[in-house]
Order: sequence, then structure tokens, then C-alpha cells
Amino acid sequence: MKKKIAVILAGNGVYDGSEIYETTMALYAIAKNEMEYMCFAPDIPHAHVINHLSGEEMKETRNVLVESARLARGQVKNLNTLNVDEYDAILIPGGFGAAKNLSDFAFKGDAMTVLPELEKIIRAFHKKRKPIGALCIAPTIIAKVLGAKVTIGNDPETAKAIVSMGGVHEEKNATDITIDEKNKIVTNPCYMSAANIYEIGEGTEACVEALKGLM
Amino acid sequence: MKKKIAVILAGNGVYDGSEIYETTMALYAIAKNEMEYMCFAPDIPHAHVINHLSGEEMKETRNVLVESARLARGQVKNLNTLNVDEYDAILIPGGFGAAKNLSDFAFKGDAMTVLPELEKIIRAFHKKRKPIGALCIAPTIIAKVLGAKVTIGNDPETAKAIVSMGGVHEEKNATDITIDEKNKIVTNPCYMSAANIYEIGEGTEACVEALKGLM
Repeated sequence: MKKKIAVILAGNGVYDGSEIYETTMALYAIAKNEMEYMCFAPDIPHAHVINHLSGEEMKETRNVLVESARLARGQVKNLNTLNVDEYDAILIPGGFGAAKNLSDFAFKGDAMTVLPELEKIIRAFHKKRKPIGALCIAPTIIAKVLGAKVTIGNDPETAKAIVSMGGVHEEKNATDITIDEKNKIVTNPCYMSAANIYEIGEGTEACVEALKGLM
Repeated sequence: MKKKIAVILAGNGVYDGSEIYETTMALYAIAKNEMEYMCFAPDIPHAHVINHLSGEEMKETRNVLVESARLARGQVKNLNTLNVDEYDAILIPGGFGAAKNLSDFAFKGDAMTVLPELEKIIRAFHKKRKPIGALCIAPTIIAKVLGAKVTIGNDPETAKAIVSMGGVHEEKNATDITIDEKNKIVTNPCYMSAANIYEIGEGTEACVEALKGLM
């Protein structure tokens, strides 16, 4: 039986959803490492919709589960149906969706809250000693819920917020990972530090390989 | 000076835009091969918008250039500004957007027409002996415009349409490419044949390496 990773999406696009290259390269790394994945996303409205050409907010509403289905080629399930017993690990890609839809870190900083259904799932994986991965800005969620050791690269503001929420921050380059062995947490800065898509490939692969090693 | 490839997008999602994994893995392969890319997309309305969760049409309009900006992380230019002299090759990923927005193959089969600004660009690259790549269903566009030898894998209906439009079709597996040396055309079936994202990685990389070899 191949190991299975649940990948948590938050929309489809860096400024209001999941970062597309981080997600795609992570899914590719999972397949390359002979594991399987299933995508999950919450059935909630986007915090807001950003025109990715102009950077301006668009006056429309989109649904996180529906937009995530684009990134998952239709193969995405409602986050509230995720059964921890069916998966060996969980992975949360970055993009502002992690900080706007899965949590409100982008709006509230260290006073953030995490989407309750996601917090419950993170705690369930942690309790069962199953590894948890997070990329880019998503490690803030793990720091908030588990007070774990993570990296978001070397952005001082975000690192400070992580410490303020009870986490430990480790400075890393784009292609390096931080492993919190005790809590089985693997994090990588991705586009918090990466200069190009090649570095995203390196960073996500390192993260996925480390998750496999912790299973 | 690094070689530069112009990548033509048609939206952001397999059922009404550019196929996300094909595009991402192609961009990754370009970076891995030490080349650069710039994305372009037409400033036109989507032919229609598909809910990728249900498969149903949504009653809204979206703009191809604006949605493509999600897939390009904001770095996308209007297709009508593409200057052939600034690029060493052109690459068109697949997804239904290639057959709905860049052409109308999905609606009209071998009676298809190609978006005039794209047809002009393809002819300009061809005339300058610069290589042209196309993935998945996008080779139908090249067959229509240039009557070239291409592959879309082994779908009999699509292969028949390619021949009917004056092209030559070669059957290939997901990770193999067809090279029309005379016309400097490289094509790969991607999701017309691929079973998983790992094969998309293999196929797009083979295509990008062949394009580099033809520059």
C-alpha cells in the first residue's frame, strides 16, 4: 500500500488562494516519491477575490472549495470529510489563501485564528504522531495551533509573530527545511524566500521527502 | 544571455483554461534548463466558465488575461504585445482553454478557427525558424495553422481531425514527444494520455529540452 498525503488547499492563486507552483510541485514530489495524495479544501467563501493582473480586489465572491477544484483537476473533497485514519501525513501549501481563508493571519497577525475544522484536523494528526508539512506562510498556522518549531524563511515580521504565538522560528533559505522532530513538523519557506520556480521544486521536494522519512 | 520562451496561457484550470500542472511543470522545466520565460494571454472573455468541482457551467464571465495572471503569479502580458524578436521559442500548454479560448476546436472540431492574434504569432515564429512547442490538445492549433506533424497521444477522433485539417498525426505515449524537424515543432500528449502528474513532469521536460535543442 502506498503512503497517502492529504493536501489542504485554500483556493487557486497566490494572492487569495493556494500558491499554484508550490502546490503543483508538492503534488509532483509526492508522486515522484511513490506516494499518493488527495486534496481537501473548506467549503467557505473566499475572504476576498484579487485580480492577479492588477493586484486590486474584485467585486465578486468565489468559493474556496470550488476554486481549489481547479488546482486539483476536480479531485478535491470537502475539508470536513477528512478522516485522519485514511492518511499518513498532511501538507498545507502556502499562498495568501493560507493566511486569508484557512486562517486570518494576513489580517490579524499574531492575533490570528485558525479555521476550526482545520485546527481540529491538525490536532488529530499531531495526536496520532502523523507528520505535518507546511510551506511558505502556512507554517504560521502550525505555530499557532501546536507551538511548534517552524521556518518561514527570514522575514523578521512573520518570524516575530510566530514567536509571539508560542512557536519557535528557525531562519532558512528557500530550498532548506526545518524539522521539528518532537512534533513531526516539516516546513519550508517556498515563495517567502524563493527567487524562482526551480527553487520551489527543490524546497517542496525536500519537504515531501522529510515527511516520508517521518511516517 | 539566457534563451527565452514565450508561454501562451488561456486561463487557469483544465476545463476552461490552461491546464495548471502542464503549465507549471513546463515553466519548471524551462528554469531547470537554464532558460527564462514570460507568459502571455489574450485579453478576451472566457468562452465559458466551468465549475471544476461539479463540471457544470457557471453563470458568470471571466477574462482570460486576468485569470491567466493567477497561473503566472501576476507576470503575464497581453498576447498582442508579444514581439517575436524578443523570444527564442514559443510554447502552448494544453487544457480546454487551448480549444475554447485560443481556438474553438472543442466546439467545432476540424472546422475550427484559431484566435487571429495567436495565428499571426505562430506564423511569425515559424517564418523566423524559431521552435514552437505545444502540449496536450494545443497541437491541434499548430496542425491547423502550419499543417505540421504533431502528436496528441492516441485519441482517434482528435488524430482524425488533425489529418483532416492538413496535419500529420503520430501516435505517442504520455512521456514521448513528436518532433517535426522541418517546421521545428515539438509536441507532447500530456493529459491527453498521461495517467498522473509524474508523467506530466516527464513529458513537459522532454518537450522543453527538445525546444532548446532546436534553438
